[in-house]
Amino acid sequence: MEPHRALVYARKHRPRFLAELKEFLRLPSVSSQPARKKDVAGCAAWLAAHLRRVGLDRVHVIPTQGNPIVYGSRQRGAGYPTLLIYGHYDVLPGEPLGEWKTQPFAPTVRGNRLYARGASDDKGQLFCHIKAIESFLAAEGKLPINVKCLFEGEEEIGSPHLFSFIARNKNALRADAAIISDTRMIAQGRPAISYAQRGGLRAEITIEGPEHELHSGSFGGAVHNPLQVLCEMVAGLHDERGRVTIPGFYDDVVAWSEKERRFMRRSGPSDEKIRQEAGVEGSWGEAGHTLYERITTRPALTVNGIAGGHSGHGHKAIIPSRAVAKLSFRLVPNQDPSKIGKLFRDHIAEVTPVTVRSSVRVQSPIRPALMNRNDPAMQTAAFAYKKGFGTSPLFLRSGGSIPVINSFQDELGVPVVLMGFGLPGDNIHAPNESFHLPTFFRAIDTCIWHLAAFAHRSPDQRSRPSERIRERIAL
Amino acid sequence: MEPHRALVYARKHRPRFLAELKEFLRLPSVSSQPARKKDVAGCAAWLAAHLRRVGLDRVHVIPTQGNPIVYGSRQRGAGYPTLLIYGHYDVLPGEPLGEWKTQPFAPTVRGNRLYARGASDDKGQLFCHIKAIESFLAAEGKLPINVKCLFEGEEEIGSPHLFSFIARNKNALRADAAIISDTRMIAQGRPAISYAQRGGLRAEITIEGPEHELHSGSFGGAVHNPLQVLCEMVAGLHDERGRVTIPGFYDDVVAWSEKERRFMRRSGPSDEKIRQEAGVEGSWGEAGHTLYERITTRPALTVNGIAGGHSGHGHKAIIPSRAVAKLSFRLVPNQDPSKIGKLFRDHIAEVTPVTVRSSVRVQSPIRPALMNRNDPAMQTAAFAYKKGFGTSPLFLRSGGSIPVINSFQDELGVPVVLMGFGLPGDNIHAPNESFHLPTFFRAIDTCIWHLAAFAHRSPDQRSRPSERIRERIAL
Repeated sequence: MEPHRALVYARKHRPRFLAELKEFLRLPSVSSQPARKKDVAGCAAWLAAHLRRVGLDRVHVIPTQGNPIVYGSRQRGAGYPTLLIYGHYDVLPGEPLGEWKTQPFAPTVRGNRLYARGASDDKGQLFCHIKAIESFLAAEGKLPINVKCLFEGEEEIGSPHLFSFIARNKNALRADAAIISDTRMIAQGRPAISYAQRGGLRAEITIEGPEHELHSGSFGGAVHNPLQVLCEMVAGLHDERGRVTIPGFYDDVVAWSEKERRFMRRSGPSDEKIRQEAGVEGSWGEAGHTLYERITTRPALTVNGIAGGHSGHGHKAIIPSRAVAKLSFRLVPNQDPSKIGKLFRDHIAEVTPVTVRSSVRVQSPIRPALMNRNDPAMQTAAFAYKKGFGTSPLFLRSGGSIPVINSFQDELGVPVVLMGFGLPGDNIHAPNESFHLPTFFRAIDTCIWHLAAFAHRSPDQRSRPSERIRERIAL
Repeated sequence: MEPHRALVYARKHRPRFLAELKEFLRLPSVSSQPARKKDVAGCAAWLAAHLRRVGLDRVHVIPTQGNPIVYGSRQRGAGYPTLLIYGHYDVLPGEPLGEWKTQPFAPTVRGNRLYARGASDDKGQLFCHIKAIESFLAAEGKLPINVKCLFEGEEEIGSPHLFSFIARNKNALRADAAIISDTRMIAQGRPAISYAQRGGLRAEITIEGPEHELHSGSFGGAVHNPLQVLCEMVAGLHDERGRVTIPGFYDDVVAWSEKERRFMRRSGPSDEKIRQEAGVEGSWGEAGHTLYERITTRPALTVNGIAGGHSGHGHKAIIPSRAVAKLSFRLVPNQDPSKIGKLFRDHIAEVTPVTVRSSVRVQSPIRPALMNRNDPAMQTAAFAYKKGFGTSPLFLRSGGSIPVINSFQDELGVPVVLMGFGLPGDNIHAPNESFHLPTFFRAIDTCIWHLAAFAHRSPDQRSRPSERIRERIAL
């Protein structure tokens, strides 16, 4: 089946698709802020209604102990392959609001970009699949395959309720492959499939000193300052060569084969390119590794925020009574988040001076994920990209974490394909996040081609390693 | 003149005095928050009206480029000694509000304490002098001496406009001594006169890295994190022995004579006492010095607050684009704040890695101050304390900074006496600040005695070193 009618339909309805995406983005579904709980639920209801409208049946807003899961499916028939489409409708907070040109939940088109929190991560990307499904159903009256859509509302807080849901619903979620669009292309018109993601672990260190704030005049020089202690701890987490100092931290890190490193050097971005994307002149980190390796095959520890003392307007001459640092680990094969959490706790306890009390909280463990570049599901996605963007995708590793990959691989036993549509300039997780509209429309075409191609995979294709993708993952 | 009638009057009107102080404390005269500018002006107007009401003439609210100065005087006659009374009606912010039992600007009596921001620092203390003046005028129809009251509204932000005002008004402010009540007693019923104050300097370090926040998944491990750099800098400001590492920092620090150190050991608080007051079990700081020395004759550098990244609810996986630390120096004879500021700038520039940009702002320089323990003005104050509290004061050094002392000493050439009425448990600069009411009433009595005694100083007393105070300052 060549999806011409679906493509024509999609092209014709682009203005409405954009208007609908803006509606979706207007809903401030911030999962990390308890005050936004109702907004998240409202967004889930909107999404479910939208899935019903485009023609999915069996649409459910499934309550969890946290934010609801939105599920919708449409059956073509028993003999057809089944595609599981995953996305997340929750977003990060918009703060700092002052740095946005237009407000994060007031979607605005400027030039060929749509600005809003979640525009690229992940509402805009998941919306491409919905619009592809709609286009098929509206143009053909049916889909070429069975589809199951699983959209969660807690990705940005580590998906605390999704994995148990997947484990409890293995049968209902059974599929031939899972597709996730929550990653980036290399540049405009240059698609990429990420075949590796780093794992993660969030950590919080709290240092407590005097019972209450002290006047730094009265006690400065005689009382250990919890904020200073915290700085010493954070500073001590890396050595001068950019390596994490937690004892045992690198014990389980895989040293990749020279073949894989060569493949990475050939396909991956240069140091210069990565510096450019980051907007920095100088790079930093572990010697002996390219920047691409540092952000994909090497682990990292980042301090994401510190709160301690008076940091607002003016100056308060105080020794604070406590200080808190929020950190995040990025982990790589074969690091185990729970083991790393324990090493971290032990290390912090070890370096805590007797003059203060420390406590450590770790949460949201995510194991690193690796996907087989040679799986036929990868081929199908590569073909769809080629049709949608006119060029074959590169196979790359990513530095981020998509916790659901482990769950799909292990619980459902399906190959996972990361068919991302984000661009480096999308500013995800930052002020002025946006989605590139020409990419949005091509991505819808790509998803239409993907649905069509997924139907036509021969049994052979399902098992034979791709010939176009020659490199093997060398673990 | 025995001030019996004034004392009787003061005792009789205690409930009203308390009610008036609550009125004064209700005005949120926070000098460090621009949004409070009108409230500060309102407080100045209230204070001026109050000075007029108690009988001062020549009361003025004098505008400055910042907050107004409130001035009021009452002349007894040309042959009488003149006392200059200084205080500040501005206060620190109430934040963090959540830690107050009752709100900072809703003065509340609980037990024998009055809780409010400014209750002890400095509204409550300066109010004692006003009530003493009122008591004399109401009971006697006249004061025993000439008084000049000078109340500023910018002490908590380093008095940026007071010193030039004093320099421009030397004649109008001419006096035989200046008295300041903005320090602490040792404990209930145990008065103290501070004869030394540390100087100060506020500093802010800003570290800038990537142009905007980056996703720590995408770039963690390859981009230098400004918040991590800031932690390294702050951590590096002290060595493991608690000494400040800025090159040249200790060059001008006076090594006190063994005699002075003995006097300090005899009169000053023990290590245990200081730990108790701070509410900590372990102390910290420069080896080879008692805690009392560390907080008075030794300089200190305190990080007062850090802002960087996401420190609110939830977690944001970011590499922040900038981070800021606010610090304060406490300086001792003969450190020069402007020299220290330069050393600090040079040091930060020196330790800034090439991967980020740093900038340093210093402000509010205050030179360390030393007062002669043997000056007759000290005697007069000691006599008043003895009358008011039944016991002679100890002569102590303080760790804080009162910037006006230098100005009075240098510009007006008057001896300065710090006759404080605060108590260690007052929680100044912290949540739940309060003033001990029995001390408040005794302090009013003390101020009445002080006015009386100041009138009776013989010419001899004005020049002869006190016999009761045997120790000399050994510079």
